[in-house]
Amino acid sequence: MKPDFLSNLPDQITLVEVGPRDGLQNQAEIPSTETKVKLIELLGNTGLTKIEAGSFVSPKAVPQMADSAAVFHQIRRKPGIRYTALTPNLQGLEAALSAGADEVAIFGSASESFSQKNIQCSITESLKRFEPVVEKALSHNVPVRGYVSCVMGCPYEGVIASEAVIDIAHTLYQMGCYEISLGDTIGIGTPLKIRQLVESLRKVVPSQHLAAHFHNTYGQALANLLAVIDAGIHIVDTSVAGLGGCPYAAGASGNLATEDVVYMLEGMGIKTGIDMEALLKAATFICARMGISSRSHVGTALIPK
Amino acid sequence: MKPDFLSNLPDQITLVEVGPRDGLQNQAEIPSTETKVKLIELLGNTGLTKIEAGSFVSPKAVPQMADSAAVFHQIRRKPGIRYTALTPNLQGLEAALSAGADEVAIFGSASESFSQKNIQCSITESLKRFEPVVEKALSHNVPVRGYVSCVMGCPYEGVIASEAVIDIAHTLYQMGCYEISLGDTIGIGTPLKIRQLVESLRKVVPSQHLAAHFHNTYGQALANLLAVIDAGIHIVDTSVAGLGGCPYAAGASGNLATEDVVYMLEGMGIKTGIDMEALLKAATFICARMGISSRSHVGTALIPK
Repeated sequence: MKPDFLSNLPDQITLVEVGPRDGLQNQAEIPSTETKVKLIELLGNTGLTKIEAGSFVSPKAVPQMADSAAVFHQIRRKPGIRYTALTPNLQGLEAALSAGADEVAIFGSASESFSQKNIQCSITESLKRFEPVVEKALSHNVPVRGYVSCVMGCPYEGVIASEAVIDIAHTLYQMGCYEISLGDTIGIGTPLKIRQLVESLRKVVPSQHLAAHFHNTYGQALANLLAVIDAGIHIVDTSVAGLGGCPYAAGASGNLATEDVVYMLEGMGIKTGIDMEALLKAATFICARMGISSRSHVGTALIPK
Repeated sequence: MKPDFLSNLPDQITLVEVGPRDGLQNQAEIPSTETKVKLIELLGNTGLTKIEAGSFVSPKAVPQMADSAAVFHQIRRKPGIRYTALTPNLQGLEAALSAGADEVAIFGSASESFSQKNIQCSITESLKRFEPVVEKALSHNVPVRGYVSCVMGCPYEGVIASEAVIDIAHTLYQMGCYEISLGDTIGIGTPLKIRQLVESLRKVVPSQHLAAHFHNTYGQALANLLAVIDAGIHIVDTSVAGLGGCPYAAGASGNLATEDVVYMLEGMGIKTGIDMEALLKAATFICARMGISSRSHVGTALIPK
């Protein structure tokens, strides 16, 4: 048997920090604008190049993100960092453009039930709604990212067929999304299944346009990430201190922690460009400010009690 | 690029449950004999075939294990299960044989400093001490397992050279240990390094005689396991509810949780023979009895609060 596994590793992997949006959005307590701004600025000192800073959605649906315009206006921006925002519709996009978002994202689902519960429309309707958003963003030279949720399964329907994932990923890519982020929203994926999905998917969306967005509900996220790196996935969504996670998922374990991903990748000789010490500073700040414990193993091991 | 990773997966993997020994040994509160017996019996209902039930060491050094003889005498044994014990010296071996241990284990280290701190002698001295233990155990037809600690690093020396690991693993194998369990005692390993160690090691110890014993201090354990499965490692040490972990390791995160490993392997179509429901019963029992939270992500997600 030849040692073929891990033989095709990239020199570097890009992390997309989703803590300030995906992470803080799922906190019971609503963080202040100042807290968000401080967190984003601390994250800006780490070497991260992409930070999801807010979401221009209905403040009734997601009160945690109601102040996203203020957040965008108040952060001291660092050159070289893209500050991104979620924009589910034209109204959100316009607000994001006014606020100066460098990139926007639309949010689709591979599950009909999840689409209905999360954005109150069918998958087909959501895609129709996204079309003018993408068109307008691109006309402003603002790149658009496409999220696909429930790529491994859905809290309402259970397992989701890979065909459904491939369909929506392909559609979003054709619509003009430069990157498709594959969300294992409830964290039920395991390495072989994730790998097989990516193998199929990259026949229609080139792997350099795919990103991994894995939740750690069942402790599988890092192994799942490892399983797709040498299939060509070199962009990973992570959250400082493991903030967040799907509120509909059992156990509500969070996103894959930025710290744990940096530790693994750097340990494998794959550059992330991220300074662990600066990252732990950001983690320490947000955990103290929110009165929560870090869900990062690395953070738990390295931050003095 | 061909999809070569994960193409050489085994049909099944054997789990060695170390919770009742390695797990409970590291609890601040000393569990009662009755608690241990109940835990071992509950684990016996899960489909596990190897359970580390105790340790015949100095009760002064490890008071948590002082009642191992009583534990062995009191458990109702199930056919098909091997109940094993740690035996650092001849005295311990004799006690283990009297108690009816089906298998014994000796405990070496790849780190000089760790050897001194943990068993108060050099690596060379420890190997000399183990020789008669192995000889006598084998003369009683009791198989001997060899643990090697600090295979990735040591809390005192930092990184440990793979040559040191290979040396002691090879020596223990030649001494008569039928299986060598590779302990990443402080959990600092990352997938590529673990994989490279196994690739080198299996040139001197065939991979079917190697086991993975990875701690999750930095959240890497499951990814590390994934990295060595298709290098031929088909035996894994795990601990129910993630009990235990090296008390010298920062953060003191525990062993790799049995539940999380079963979830990954079964999700990959690799049989473990373990019933998750029965396993969660054992986890629920021991966490409630010890007043601790499960460190298993699967347990946290699936056990009702």
